[in-house]
Amino acid sequence: MTIEVVALDGDDTLWHSEVAFKAVEERFGNLLAAHVDMDRVSDELLAIERLNLARFGYGVKSFVLSMIETAISITDGAVTAPEIHQIIDLGKWLLDHPIELLDDVEETVPQLAERYHLLLITKGDLLHQETKVAASGLADHFAGVHIVTYKDATTYRSVIDTLAVDPTRFLMAGNSLPSDVLPVIEAGGHGVHIPHEHEWEAERLAADVAVPTVDRLGQLPGLIDDLG
Amino acid sequence: MTIEVVALDGDDTLWHSEVAFKAVEERFGNLLAAHVDMDRVSDELLAIERLNLARFGYGVKSFVLSMIETAISITDGAVTAPEIHQIIDLGKWLLDHPIELLDDVEETVPQLAERYHLLLITKGDLLHQETKVAASGLADHFAGVHIVTYKDATTYRSVIDTLAVDPTRFLMAGNSLPSDVLPVIEAGGHGVHIPHEHEWEAERLAADVAVPTVDRLGQLPGLIDDLG
Repeated sequence: MTIEVVALDGDDTLWHSEVAFKAVEERFGNLLAAHVDMDRVSDELLAIERLNLARFGYGVKSFVLSMIETAISITDGAVTAPEIHQIIDLGKWLLDHPIELLDDVEETVPQLAERYHLLLITKGDLLHQETKVAASGLADHFAGVHIVTYKDATTYRSVIDTLAVDPTRFLMAGNSLPSDVLPVIEAGGHGVHIPHEHEWEAERLAADVAVPTVDRLGQLPGLIDDLG
Repeated sequence: MTIEVVALDGDDTLWHSEVAFKAVEERFGNLLAAHVDMDRVSDELLAIERLNLARFGYGVKSFVLSMIETAISITDGAVTAPEIHQIIDLGKWLLDHPIELLDDVEETVPQLAERYHLLLITKGDLLHQETKVAASGLADHFAGVHIVTYKDATTYRSVIDTLAVDPTRFLMAGNSLPSDVLPVIEAGGHGVHIPHEHEWEAERLAADVAVPTVDRLGQLPGLIDDLG
């Protein structure tokens, strides 16, 4: 069972993402501290993000719109226009935030690209993801970049079908169990978990699931060898 | 010189789009009428959209964020939180707006799909464009759907290269000269203009350009026959 195609997630697998979102969420809480108890802000924001997900999708622009809705709703309309402008500026700060690669990435991505058909499969704002791929300096190592709306089994089946590869020869690795690992396994491929210290609340799973796991990307080539 | 690949634009080529954006822009102006002269609103919105384009890209979420920034700036911060919430609701209305196909589309798209490798190449929010393609009922007729950030010659060259087709056998038709026609010609392919009564201000070209033009999609198969 030789792996032919290796796909990697971007955010919090190749480069930091959630840490900047968390920093913005903290600044958002501080911004509203004049109006409301900060403890309530995160819960309300998460609830509104969930309500908006089907309509707005993932990404910074959706996050900003949900922060604005949260600010209006949680302050009963008392949040001021200048404060709302500061929320938009937090979004611009996120979009402009420089890319910082995770450990091992710079060495391991070229190594994987030499041995496998290497893909990047990521979700979020189209423009922002493209900008991050370009800024990562890794773009030339990928045979293909797929920016998708949802990472479900249907999405992975579609990628696998397009490549006309047997699913058992397809492996995806990333930091999110529900996005990068479990649906790949459901689609008949191999999913490998590379946990990241920051996890998006809405993605956190209650149950422990036993899946192939490595601590860092540098361990992935060895794990793939062991599969072969 | 036989055409093998026909690519179509989505918004205002296959289905109405700009008319709903214009309706929202009018409601946005009415919303601010209590604060400012409505004539100023469109100019200010257009200026802010242009400033935000490189960071936000195209699409409804970008449009909403630019409307909010415009409302704050043009009212010197006097716009209220409930009014800003109404702006977000205008965006949700746009995202939920049902698809209405343009004349000829329902008959001509299947006809083109029988004779050519038919693609849809569209730009904007990834999720919103996917939702519109699905709602159009046309998805099954397309051999491929490309949702891209920018429609420039590089984008079209990349699509043409991926298909491994000679550029002279590739034809793209759409309502926007700068997005659907001129960059395709620059990439060595055929561009056909299908003008739409509504044009996005930022895309309007000052100069007249002589390019192959049809009044409606139903005339495209005949024009392609004449090329062959």
